[in-house]
Amino acid sequence: MLLAVILGGAWVAPAHAFEGMYPPAELLSLPPAGAQKLVGIDLHVWSDPLGDPLGAIVQLQGCSASFVSADGLIVTNHHCAVGYLTEARRDGENLVGDGFYAPTLADERSAGPSARVWVTRSLVDVTAQVVAGVTATTTDTDRALKVEANQKKLIAACEKPGGVRCRVVSTYEGRVYTLITQDELRDLRLVYVPPDAVGNYGDEVDNWHWPRHTGDFAFLRAYATPEGKPADYSDKNVPFHPAHHLVVGVGPAAGDLIAVAGYPGTTGRWRTAGEVAEEAGYTLPLAKQEMDWALDMWATVGRSGADARARLAVSVTGYGNYSTKYAGMLEGYERSHVVDALREREAALDAWIAADPARTARYTQPIAELRRKIADKTTTRDRDRTYTYLVRSDLLGAARTIYKWSRMQALPDEKREPGFQARDRAPLLAKLSEIDQHYVPAAEERWLKHFLTELSALPDGQRIPELETWIGGRDEAAIDKAINRLFDGPLLANKDQRLAAFSQPSTTLAASTDGFLSLAAALAPFDERQRRDDLARTGAFERLRPIYAEALAAFEPERTYPDANGTLRLSFGHLTTQDPRDAVHYGDQTTVVGVAQKAGAWPYNAPQPLLDAIAAGEKSGDWGKYADPVLKTVPVNFLADLDITGGNSGSPTLNAKGEWTGMVFDSNWEGVISGTVYDPVQARSIGVDVRYILWYLGAVAHADRVMKELGQ
Amino acid sequence: MLLAVILGGAWVAPAHAFEGMYPPAELLSLPPAGAQKLVGIDLHVWSDPLGDPLGAIVQLQGCSASFVSADGLIVTNHHCAVGYLTEARRDGENLVGDGFYAPTLADERSAGPSARVWVTRSLVDVTAQVVAGVTATTTDTDRALKVEANQKKLIAACEKPGGVRCRVVSTYEGRVYTLITQDELRDLRLVYVPPDAVGNYGDEVDNWHWPRHTGDFAFLRAYATPEGKPADYSDKNVPFHPAHHLVVGVGPAAGDLIAVAGYPGTTGRWRTAGEVAEEAGYTLPLAKQEMDWALDMWATVGRSGADARARLAVSVTGYGNYSTKYAGMLEGYERSHVVDALREREAALDAWIAADPARTARYTQPIAELRRKIADKTTTRDRDRTYTYLVRSDLLGAARTIYKWSRMQALPDEKREPGFQARDRAPLLAKLSEIDQHYVPAAEERWLKHFLTELSALPDGQRIPELETWIGGRDEAAIDKAINRLFDGPLLANKDQRLAAFSQPSTTLAASTDGFLSLAAALAPFDERQRRDDLARTGAFERLRPIYAEALAAFEPERTYPDANGTLRLSFGHLTTQDPRDAVHYGDQTTVVGVAQKAGAWPYNAPQPLLDAIAAGEKSGDWGKYADPVLKTVPVNFLADLDITGGNSGSPTLNAKGEWTGMVFDSNWEGVISGTVYDPVQARSIGVDVRYILWYLGAVAHADRVMKELGQ
Repeated sequence: MLLAVILGGAWVAPAHAFEGMYPPAELLSLPPAGAQKLVGIDLHVWSDPLGDPLGAIVQLQGCSASFVSADGLIVTNHHCAVGYLTEARRDGENLVGDGFYAPTLADERSAGPSARVWVTRSLVDVTAQVVAGVTATTTDTDRALKVEANQKKLIAACEKPGGVRCRVVSTYEGRVYTLITQDELRDLRLVYVPPDAVGNYGDEVDNWHWPRHTGDFAFLRAYATPEGKPADYSDKNVPFHPAHHLVVGVGPAAGDLIAVAGYPGTTGRWRTAGEVAEEAGYTLPLAKQEMDWALDMWATVGRSGADARARLAVSVTGYGNYSTKYAGMLEGYERSHVVDALREREAALDAWIAADPARTARYTQPIAELRRKIADKTTTRDRDRTYTYLVRSDLLGAARTIYKWSRMQALPDEKREPGFQARDRAPLLAKLSEIDQHYVPAAEERWLKHFLTELSALPDGQRIPELETWIGGRDEAAIDKAINRLFDGPLLANKDQRLAAFSQPSTTLAASTDGFLSLAAALAPFDERQRRDDLARTGAFERLRPIYAEALAAFEPERTYPDANGTLRLSFGHLTTQDPRDAVHYGDQTTVVGVAQKAGAWPYNAPQPLLDAIAAGEKSGDWGKYADPVLKTVPVNFLADLDITGGNSGSPTLNAKGEWTGMVFDSNWEGVISGTVYDPVQARSIGVDVRYILWYLGAVAHADRVMKELGQ
Repeated sequence: MLLAVILGGAWVAPAHAFEGMYPPAELLSLPPAGAQKLVGIDLHVWSDPLGDPLGAIVQLQGCSASFVSADGLIVTNHHCAVGYLTEARRDGENLVGDGFYAPTLADERSAGPSARVWVTRSLVDVTAQVVAGVTATTTDTDRALKVEANQKKLIAACEKPGGVRCRVVSTYEGRVYTLITQDELRDLRLVYVPPDAVGNYGDEVDNWHWPRHTGDFAFLRAYATPEGKPADYSDKNVPFHPAHHLVVGVGPAAGDLIAVAGYPGTTGRWRTAGEVAEEAGYTLPLAKQEMDWALDMWATVGRSGADARARLAVSVTGYGNYSTKYAGMLEGYERSHVVDALREREAALDAWIAADPARTARYTQPIAELRRKIADKTTTRDRDRTYTYLVRSDLLGAARTIYKWSRMQALPDEKREPGFQARDRAPLLAKLSEIDQHYVPAAEERWLKHFLTELSALPDGQRIPELETWIGGRDEAAIDKAINRLFDGPLLANKDQRLAAFSQPSTTLAASTDGFLSLAAALAPFDERQRRDDLARTGAFERLRPIYAEALAAFEPERTYPDANGTLRLSFGHLTTQDPRDAVHYGDQTTVVGVAQKAGAWPYNAPQPLLDAIAAGEKSGDWGKYADPVLKTVPVNFLADLDITGGNSGSPTLNAKGEWTGMVFDSNWEGVISGTVYDPVQARSIGVDVRYILWYLGAVAHADRVMKELGQ
């Protein structure tokens, strides 16, 4: 699943720069070879990121989505919407298993108070304003603080009460900064979600693999005030009327141009060889190890009862997805010898620089310094990595948020750290509220003991004195005692107490008898040191990376597109078969017949009405208007050479006229390392054909209201 | 792997009837649809099973093989020859891992005293002689004894000292009996065997699956006296000069006719629905369960040391192969609804019979009786199945053989039971000798305890009084005491004592203090009852099955070929791709490039010289004379719609001119149930291309002497 990684709660989705190119290079996330495919397309269709059709494409949390009606109907992936079912669920319902359908507008249910849709309104190049005041003599720490302050100022001037949200994003490794303005719609409701056995058919067995037979789609609706303004959920709200929405086109066929547009999260194709080597040799293997430990632990805890299992389900799905993805990335790194190739490229870059005195003067020292700074980061990597896991604890995370928020209140808003300004109050409170949905004390205890033990075992120079002092030692007995203190009636396990604590002064919090608040206060000096170290490093990177990017772009002139950064991106391609192994050939489309072929025990527990509809089609040979003229049946999923990454989930695919033909929802196994390198021979995106969505809605779900709204 | 099941020690490989057809229908193991492919072939090439090229094809134990030189060079599968390496091994050698090559004739090593090659010399229809003396009033038991006695008489008259061996086989469910005369060559030597990582590349991971990249070939040589007579191993022996040998042809290409000829063991396509239902619902699931238990147990015992592991290796491989095969068969039975289809066919047969008074008069009663007899067998199936496993014990098996042999000495040779006549002395002694190679006391103890416990737990009417009396009870304590008695210095664990016991009178054996001999004597009355029950049932089946087969053949006139019965069979076909699942297409050939693609950890530990030769070919683009003109590289394995079964391992594939183009060595997963039904859409055979064999011998193994002998 192509969910963007959500770190620290808020999904950082910066905008990007448009320079009037048609299409602008920055809008493309195409590899160089792919750019050749653009010959002959009608560029006018793709010229305006705020117009038709691209303006219909919006952001969800970690995902992309599209307006598909004038009344705010939104389509996205099932796996992007399934979390909302927990919010919408009523006693006795199993919405994940059964799916959800609102036969009338009045039946549409809220996706919960923290559901958000972002509609992009403007994009402005603010590079000059972001670096204003930075001079050649500015220290790295001051540079980082200056850039941060400038961005906060731009955002403060841009945001408006009632739902106008702004962000500044860096593109081309900080060579360009863009201010992106978005309407933040806060009243999102569920319209139609298929049963899990359709929307997640194949589950982890099929995840990241082709051939697929997954109906990974769901329909939502955005609501606003009668005046069309973003608002919290209210029965006074009415369907939102977007400026642009997609119209249904004919699903993709061999030879046709196919485009995908969405908000991919991050790629790292401009990283140094050292950074990729660190990921391949350290970060990923250890992250996979910790995730697998957590999955085991949750499985053990989950055996205690259905309630614990339900609370842990979202974490289990998320970690399961990433554990599989990381396994694929590690396999891909080894198979493709990516690090070796990047090292060779850097050696060639160095030689190219050394061959010219002007290049030598401009690039040699900064690039050497950049590589050194990257290597420096690795000296405390065990501590930093483990600490990151420790503070993912529900209650310790809440305590740190509360304590830091409280401390930041002492400062004027513009001086507060990003993420702790007035504008962040509502999302932080929402996040604190949501803890109830996944908090399981037994899992939390095991989590903390595991990572406290790991931190205590680190060598001198990587340990955290504040932590050891608070624990009162490094041995198991001390850690057990600390755990007992933390879980001796923890205040923050209660939602009201969490929300009350959020408004208390930091001195009160620090003096609290609650273990978690006490620990958060004790860790604050360490967090401060980390913040200062980060600022110095961030400033250095902001100074050095643009120079590195400039050198790399000059060395490889075909390198025209920036890394993904959560802004709208386009990729063009075609349905593309794959020859993954000797004597194995994958077709580029699957069909409903294949759905029935796979049917059996979970995760292939296709619902009986679906199997009946397929059997009826096979018997009569009549599949209705959504049959593919070549396949003579209903196509389900397709394989294409579209370049996508995490965050692209829910991105619509469009035909040459810009009409909606489907949605991407996954990469193939060989495409899992596309974040670092895109392999045009083997990497593929996997999408769901609009004809399967429509056939299913009509012949199986009988969701007539949705069909009508889609003009069917 | 297509090894024939070896039950009870000797592989029962009967001959078949030829009626002068060209090719005779009995020679074909083609499904009806496949028969259509015969149009346009030169039938003359296939007309004589004793001439060129079919006369070059011979039997090995459980396998097929071919003479490929005038000097007795034999080619077969690696997995058919790998057991001989244990016999040929000298101290410090790892012949399985390293492979074996004899650079000169003098270096060729014996494959061991029990290695055998059978060369067919004649085939004679003896139906009238076999049933001579049977009348309408003969009881079933007398009928079975009469048929058995007639066969013994025919065999005794046929066999000659010095290596002429004869057998009578039943074809078409006993409608035809054939006497087959074969030369039994007893001096077999190893010439070239590739390393395990080539000959068994992919091991159990790839077993029964396509795509494959296995060099499943090995070269042996048959030796005889200077006069060309079969003889035990001797340095006086010289290479055997076969009357016929295959010549190397060009490997298979798309569109070319491809034939396979060999000695398939058994198929059961003429069985009743009840028999197949019994296999699918009882025999296979329980056999798989027992095999998996044994594999677990051997794994535990194997952890005690390398010697135990080495002794258990052959059993582990064999049971592993069958456990996988049975899983595939169970999956295939469920997927294909075979039992339902057979039940429908029988209902249609019954209706066809009922529609005609003459047919009703001739078939109704016998078919009803046959079905009843088959159902009767199931009343003691738990006991019979478990007892079969119990007596597979090395030492109990030996004790029963010795005791029965001794008792049979009291009778004139022609009155002794088949398998215990003078002609059987040498193979029985060889088998008794070989126990040393696989006997592991700890495994034997666990084996006996497991099956004694299972037998003791059976309900009344299925238990064995003689066994319970000998054990002295049914509870665990009694069984443990019995085990202690058996393993209190067991005589038969010593080879000399085993061979000595073979010559002792039965009274001495029965009075022995040795537990195994005492138990074998105690079980003899039960074995006798089983023998009498078997005779009655066998006689009934011999009376009823030919009538059932006659009805079925009349009902389905396209049913022209008999079940496999270990006699020479031909199947014609073509290289054939496969579409196993929606959007998945398998090509019909793999290449050396795919060998390198798979290379990595075991079971894909391709030897470095092989990988180097592939890398050299890829670099230069020059693959030499064994490259395929279309693939532009060396083909390795191929997929074809040839109808084969266990025992076909090592069967050569031949082109339209009858030249050698490769060897089959496996079925695909969907072909695992071909013993019951052949699915022309999905069932495939897997073969190794002669060009891979020759390229490997030349470019990697540098086995120049073999290449020269093959005319390369």
